[in-house]
Amino acid sequence: MQAGKPILYSYFRSSCSWRVRIALALKSIDYETIPINLIKDGGQQLAIIEYLEETRPTPRLLPRDPKKRAHVRMISDLIAGGIQPLQNLSVLKQVGQENQLTWAQKAITSGFNALEQILQSTAGRYCVGDEVSMADLCLVPQVANAERFKVDLTPYPTISRINKTLLTLEAFQVSHPCRQPDTPPELRA
Amino acid sequence: MQAGKPILYSYFRSSCSWRVRIALALKSIDYETIPINLIKDGGQQLAIIEYLEETRPTPRLLPRDPKKRAHVRMISDLIAGGIQPLQNLSVLKQVGQENQLTWAQKAITSGFNALEQILQSTAGRYCVGDEVSMADLCLVPQVANAERFKVDLTPYPTISRINKTLLTLEAFQVSHPCRQPDTPPELRA
Repeated sequence: MQAGKPILYSYFRSSCSWRVRIALALKSIDYETIPINLIKDGGQQLAIIEYLEETRPTPRLLPRDPKKRAHVRMISDLIAGGIQPLQNLSVLKQVGQENQLTWAQKAITSGFNALEQILQSTAGRYCVGDEVSMADLCLVPQVANAERFKVDLTPYPTISRINKTLLTLEAFQVSHPCRQPDTPPELRA
Repeated sequence: MQAGKPILYSYFRSSCSWRVRIALALKSIDYETIPINLIKDGGQQLAIIEYLEETRPTPRLLPRDPKKRAHVRMISDLIAGGIQPLQNLSVLKQVGQENQLTWAQKAITSGFNALEQILQSTAGRYCVGDEVSMADLCLVPQVANAERFKVDLTPYPTISRINKTLLTLEAFQVSHPCRQPDTPPELRA
């Protein structure tokens, strides 16, 4: 990372890639994208975000206060470890085509039920207080997945409100799946 | 945490609880256990471990070097976000009884294939170099789960070797599921 321009192996639609793209944009790190169509499971990209945080500490993506940091990590892990792995491509393939939508919706609503409740005690303008954090980087791509799977978001007013606010920020817009080098023309915006 | 003895809401068999128990033992933090039989999904307990690391920095569970820290987090996230959520109780229930074993084995072997390869470049005595880290806290409970699901571990010599070494350490023994307040008599050792 210190030597030369970092390379992000990215897939336009992957919520894991999107999280990292938001972090790179927030920290104004210039990078090259190598699009790949093979997606690994899980929330491994959180390790990249923590690494960026340690090597490029400004702006902070983790609050200084240990309790708030724990809240940020709890929310990030709930999304990246508790929801996203259950509704990613390889798991859906294993579930079988006829059950995919129900399966993904169940994973997301059960996670969002917990998340909505947590946010009611941690949120300010964003997921934890009024500063953008790693939790917000996880929230927006997950809400986009929820929309793809036609999850009804009415029971989640806090999630919806924070998501809407975050999507007005430039870092969340330039990193959006509809604006990546490998986005197919019909999905561009 | 600063005021009074911390309370761990724990389930003897949960790999998430076990990870945290190892961290508490390594940091010599005295705590009370409240056994609970309700288990939340995912790797949320990594937030507790990071919090412990920040408030009780000795002994370190994350290496000082940012690249090594990223390796530790990558391995931890692979296990806690990429493997464990796919084989936990609530997902297995959703999968249906007749498919549970195959499902869990597939999730674990696909994760262990990636993990074995990563460890070949990061491991020393333990997962990352020669110091016990958060990655090791994730490894041992996951290997125990693999054994419960009768996964053949012969293709994973590095995973098996590190697991065996770690199980000789006291922190991994006192925190073991077979020695918890809520361990049923027939599973005690």
